[in-house]
Amino acid sequence: MSEANRDPLWLAILQETEQAVRDEPLLASFLHMTVLRHSTLEDVLAFHLSSKLASPVMDARALLELFREALAADPQISRAMRADISACYDRDPACDRYSTPLLYFKGFHALQSQRITHWLWQQDRKTLAYFLQNRISEVMSADIHPAARIGEGVMLDHGTGVVVGETAVIGNNVSILHGVTLGGSGKERGDRHPKIGDGVMIGAGAAILGNLRVGECAKVGAGSVVLDDVPPHTTVAGVPAKVVAQLGPGTPALDMDQRV
Amino acid sequence: MSEANRDPLWLAILQETEQAVRDEPLLASFLHMTVLRHSTLEDVLAFHLSSKLASPVMDARALLELFREALAADPQISRAMRADISACYDRDPACDRYSTPLLYFKGFHALQSQRITHWLWQQDRKTLAYFLQNRISEVMSADIHPAARIGEGVMLDHGTGVVVGETAVIGNNVSILHGVTLGGSGKERGDRHPKIGDGVMIGAGAAILGNLRVGECAKVGAGSVVLDDVPPHTTVAGVPAKVVAQLGPGTPALDMDQRV
Amino acid sequence: MSEANRDPLWLAILQETEQAVRDEPLLASFLHMTVLRHSTLEDVLAFHLSSKLASPVMDARALLELFREALAADPQISRAMRADISACYDRDPACDRYSTPLLYFKGFHALQSQRITHWLWQQDRKTLAYFLQNRISEVMSADIHPAARIGEGVMLDHGTGVVVGETAVIGNNVSILHGVTLGGSGKERGDRHPKIGDGVMIGAGAAILGNLRVGECAKVGAGSVVLDDVPPHTTVAGVPAKVVAQLGPGTPALDMDQRV
Amino acid sequence: MSEANRDPLWLAILQETEQAVRDEPLLASFLHMTVLRHSTLEDVLAFHLSSKLASPVMDARALLELFREALAADPQISRAMRADISACYDRDPACDRYSTPLLYFKGFHALQSQRITHWLWQQDRKTLAYFLQNRISEVMSADIHPAARIGEGVMLDHGTGVVVGETAVIGNNVSILHGVTLGGSGKERGDRHPKIGDGVMIGAGAAILGNLRVGECAKVGAGSVVLDDVPPHTTVAGVPAKVVAQLGPGTPALDMDQRV
Amino acid sequence: MSEANRDPLWLAILQETEQAVRDEPLLASFLHMTVLRHSTLEDVLAFHLSSKLASPVMDARALLELFREALAADPQISRAMRADISACYDRDPACDRYSTPLLYFKGFHALQSQRITHWLWQQDRKTLAYFLQNRISEVMSADIHPAARIGEGVMLDHGTGVVVGETAVIGNNVSILHGVTLGGSGKERGDRHPKIGDGVMIGAGAAILGNLRVGECAKVGAGSVVLDDVPPHTTVAGVPAKVVAQLGPGTPALDMDQRV
Amino acid sequence: MSEANRDPLWLAILQETEQAVRDEPLLASFLHMTVLRHSTLEDVLAFHLSSKLASPVMDARALLELFREALAADPQISRAMRADISACYDRDPACDRYSTPLLYFKGFHALQSQRITHWLWQQDRKTLAYFLQNRISEVMSADIHPAARIGEGVMLDHGTGVVVGETAVIGNNVSILHGVTLGGSGKERGDRHPKIGDGVMIGAGAAILGNLRVGECAKVGAGSVVLDDVPPHTTVAGVPAKVVAQLGPGTPALDMDQRV
Repeated sequence: MSEANRDPLWLAILQETEQAVRDEPLLASFLHMTVLRHSTLEDVLAFHLSSKLASPVMDARALLELFREALAADPQISRAMRADISACYDRDPACDRYSTPLLYFKGFHALQSQRITHWLWQQDRKTLAYFLQNRISEVMSADIHPAARIGEGVMLDHGTGVVVGETAVIGNNVSILHGVTLGGSGKERGDRHPKIGDGVMIGAGAAILGNLRVGECAKVGAGSVVLDDVPPHTTVAGVPAKVVAQLGPGTPALDMDQRV
Repeated sequence: MSEANRDPLWLAILQETEQAVRDEPLLASFLHMTVLRHSTLEDVLAFHLSSKLASPVMDARALLELFREALAADPQISRAMRADISACYDRDPACDRYSTPLLYFKGFHALQSQRITHWLWQQDRKTLAYFLQNRISEVMSADIHPAARIGEGVMLDHGTGVVVGETAVIGNNVSILHGVTLGGSGKERGDRHPKIGDGVMIGAGAAILGNLRVGECAKVGAGSVVLDDVPPHTTVAGVPAKVVAQLGPGTPALDMDQRV
Repeated sequence: MSEANRDPLWLAILQETEQAVRDEPLLASFLHMTVLRHSTLEDVLAFHLSSKLASPVMDARALLELFREALAADPQISRAMRADISACYDRDPACDRYSTPLLYFKGFHALQSQRITHWLWQQDRKTLAYFLQNRISEVMSADIHPAARIGEGVMLDHGTGVVVGETAVIGNNVSILHGVTLGGSGKERGDRHPKIGDGVMIGAGAAILGNLRVGECAKVGAGSVVLDDVPPHTTVAGVPAKVVAQLGPGTPALDMDQRV
Repeated sequence: MSEANRDPLWLAILQETEQAVRDEPLLASFLHMTVLRHSTLEDVLAFHLSSKLASPVMDARALLELFREALAADPQISRAMRADISACYDRDPACDRYSTPLLYFKGFHALQSQRITHWLWQQDRKTLAYFLQNRISEVMSADIHPAARIGEGVMLDHGTGVVVGETAVIGNNVSILHGVTLGGSGKERGDRHPKIGDGVMIGAGAAILGNLRVGECAKVGAGSVVLDDVPPHTTVAGVPAKVVAQLGPGTPALDMDQRV
Repeated sequence: MSEANRDPLWLAILQETEQAVRDEPLLASFLHMTVLRHSTLEDVLAFHLSSKLASPVMDARALLELFREALAADPQISRAMRADISACYDRDPACDRYSTPLLYFKGFHALQSQRITHWLWQQDRKTLAYFLQNRISEVMSADIHPAARIGEGVMLDHGTGVVVGETAVIGNNVSILHGVTLGGSGKERGDRHPKIGDGVMIGAGAAILGNLRVGECAKVGAGSVVLDDVPPHTTVAGVPAKVVAQLGPGTPALDMDQRV
Repeated sequence: MSEANRDPLWLAILQETEQAVRDEPLLASFLHMTVLRHSTLEDVLAFHLSSKLASPVMDARALLELFREALAADPQISRAMRADISACYDRDPACDRYSTPLLYFKGFHALQSQRITHWLWQQDRKTLAYFLQNRISEVMSADIHPAARIGEGVMLDHGTGVVVGETAVIGNNVSILHGVTLGGSGKERGDRHPKIGDGVMIGAGAAILGNLRVGECAKVGAGSVVLDDVPPHTTVAGVPAKVVAQLGPGTPALDMDQRV
């Protein structure tokens, strides 16, 4: 039994895909090319993202090789990607297959693409990282700086309009809805973007601006504008955001309760 | 006289397009291929959307056939599309031709594409519906779940950043600006998204979250976050949104008055 | 020495690009085709935008010729483009090369594309302007009406979700974050969109609605909804926005301070 | 049982293709898109030829519709195509599946494409016929005038370099190797190309020039130049060609014996 | 009246094309993009050839600019192209419009493309000339060395399989059928290919090998192999070719009589 | 020093290509993508052939992986490819760089592509081999059966119109001009195609038909039709071909003397 065959997530995705080919002839071509002819989840991700990010000025073959190189060089990307798939599966009631985020969730695609630009940034290949950031922003409408550090088990739901700045840090098991900004303030270089703790949930359209800290398991209400630190296990909301609730020991990112 | 020739909307669009070919040689190629060589409005829509949603992994021919099949199978899609064109023409001061939304309004394209994914969902072709939802979200930046039920005469203005969840319901003659969220709350399945009454107008960037009801002819101010039911004929605004005005017998979706 | 050789911005961009070719083989193909084989900054811009906006229904060659025609006919576009590059370089701490906005900033691309659609609008080539507005909106997620008048030295940061209406006017040296709306109100034609004074900064996600005036060097906080005139040198914030601070003689658009 | 299900050739091709998908994952995508998702042989042919003949200036969707229209309007094309598949299967020792000529034989593709241009010619759509003749000549290297009349059960083996003129007529059950010319002579209009009888075999590179008759079941040796009538049941060879053998009652096109 | 308007060939082609757009909606898109939106015959040629020769590794825009540059720099190319169109119109009975060779004759396209590679060769841009020779050979199946010198009023009929070597010279008013070789002999550099006199006609598939001279108004029969000089006003035929007829004062290239 | 750095052919090609980038800006993009960013000659070949053979129904990435797999699995392909490059360099007076056949000679591309289909055939991946044979035949106009066995140091000059059958065998150091057929005879399976000895030269347009032997260092004149064995060290010519000369101890394939 090969290593791939011992990978339960990959086996589940293969099984789901084989079923989809049987159910939907129109997708058979796509699913064979993108999933079934490959032998690891990493190969599928690299192929799928290279399909999406290629353009008349950047060859899909060159991107595919680059993405495979990144995935081979940094096993952390795979680990995080797998946790991100599980995050979608566990937290999004509309997601009942592991293959759905992998193949069809734009926010997931943007996040995995950033994991690759982040590796490029670490390798000091900054121009290529900028090139890809631009392309990700065009295709997936999420503009995440390659230098931003992002944990595992993150759900970037929908992804449209998300902006994450250069010195932002996002912890593990965070849920970020569409339209969220983790932005800087001022025109000076240096550490100027938010730090998001583990388990935080940030509602749709919220803007968190400046080098501030959102404590672990905090919740930021939709449409809020956060300009100050947020204590752990609290809910903030409003423009500007204020603490509106103390939270119990739960994890807002997992509960996905949007009420404030 | 053929049926197509008795279709006044189609005749108007043909006439506008012939004029455009005369006025603008650079568009003649596009307009001939996309409009003039066809004989019904439905064929134009199917061709135009298949141009926009095709990709290296999904052939334009296969999409075209699918979209024609949907339009032939469900006459409701055509009816709604025609009402949506009129909605743009009547409500958007910048729109003075019937062909403009058909050909150039991204929100209109996203809405009609969702009408097709909704048909697929009803046929239990869910994987294909997800595939297309992803593609619509990439091209048109509007992420509308295929299961969402949407009435006629809806104007999805600009469309960028719009998110509509699985169990959302949108009535007739509704106007929805860009950046609007009709989102769920929590991670449980079941009915968890807003229900929007007839004649409602939802301002830019508003987030309406949870299984709540926005009553008919209500108005939701731009940037508002709505977490509770909204009575009919009222205006709500703010983060979180509160009732700020009682409205007369008019229809906010038709008046498009953004003041609150 | 040719005129191009006396253009210091072009020389800087050439030098940066030659360095990038040496540093990053994967980009050499793109950079040679898009930058190095050209002899003016205007040719690079025209080529780059035509790469991005071409599609199976609009030939890249036809767009390239159109964009070169516009740039040759209206020197104001070049002048503004150069000021816009400097604006990004000066105000965005993450931007340390002149070539970065030119090649990789989506907001910059959307803005320059609108400068071209504006020229078309002035030439009464309105249908072509609409065609391109739609395409810009798809690729760059910014929906800016061709008729809008926009000054020089404008930074459209990220650009995603930006909507600017037909009768909007934007002054010089303005900074506009992503998700900003300069929208109309009502369904009557005529002057119905905001007028933004010189030096104004508009934070992420702010909506400014109706024919109102934002005075020079004012600041609009992120997520605000502005429905009334904003006096010069003041900060407004909130939903709806209220004056929250008087500002000194500085220029918010240059300082980029997001606090309110 | 539908009509398609009673079509044994189609059923054989489906079966072969399903086996090929199992055997060769790299072809699964192509075979699903081109064969398996269709329900008639005619649809497969129309789709496959439109894949091959589309170009940046002629949309695959438009060609697909045209080819389907031709196949629906003129059942003779289908009949001939089926006889041509059998001809390859029966006469080419390297061809042991019915799907092989349909999918992979360039001469077969050129011949079926001409059957469609011939239908266009008959409909007096001559410019479109010329457009396609040019494209066929580029892709398949066979330049066959749309007006040429061609019988059934014809094998155009390899196809490269074949030229057939406007007033040429080719009978049934003819085999034509690559590089064969059925050319005119002189610059006057009118009937000026060869007439090829039933059962004739024309060897590789032979040129038959002028309004002459090659009698039924004659054989033209490879590399021959034929300037005079060829009696039935004879072999001609040489430059210029002379009768070199009387043939028995067999059919050279079926025997494919290249000796002279 | 502009210069273009005084160009009768261009006016005729415009008129033919406008008629074709009316007659054939399926071609309207192609004809507008390729012909009607341009203002000179040279622009049409440059655009059309760049459509045909572009590829995923060579941008159509770059080719278009190159071809326009060549046509502007060397007026001889235009003059010869116009004479070549007339040659087809006068000598090919199947050609009754000036636009037909321009748009649809592969041999004509290959010949004009070589006129451009020849200009590149003269500018010592040999690698680019080889790049294009390869591409011409792929698309048009005619492999003509960029260094070959070719006169005006040349008809390259069909073009498939034509090979013309580095030191070949072709006079004015020559007709060359498909499959013709003007080849070298030996492996030494230097002058080693045929010289073809004015008015010569070379039949299909003929091979003329070595540094020999075919005298003016000679005729080479189809399928002949010519290894020695051919006197003016004679017909040669056979393998190897021998003089088979003395010709009168006519011009074989104009008469197109293939008999020998 | 890496293995690649000890490969003198690769180093020569790199050096030639770097010079070409300096000389010809228009090719810089192509040459960087296709040559300079790779580290072995094999990678360049695989990339270049995948560019040429990809199509809307066969992804370039999938082909690239396949070709790299073949080159890695069968070192004989590399060895033969290198000998083929040298063959062109040594025998073709118009070829003065090693990179010229690699990048620009269609016959060379067809031959290397067949070396890959031959490997597929040996792996019993026959359908994929047929798929590629078809595509090679379309792009390079050479139709070479995957089962044909071809030696090293073979020059397939120009390649247009070449047809080589299933059971043909070609020795080492053979030169084959364009338009050559190594064809079968009859419709029975089994060994039915020519066997070409080492050092043979076959002139343009020659047809060699049936299971016959062309002895080593024989020469077949252009346009000949060979139906019988050819003794070693003899020249045959004519239709049908006869022995016309005894040859000395030289190697016709190396001398490239086309006289007979």
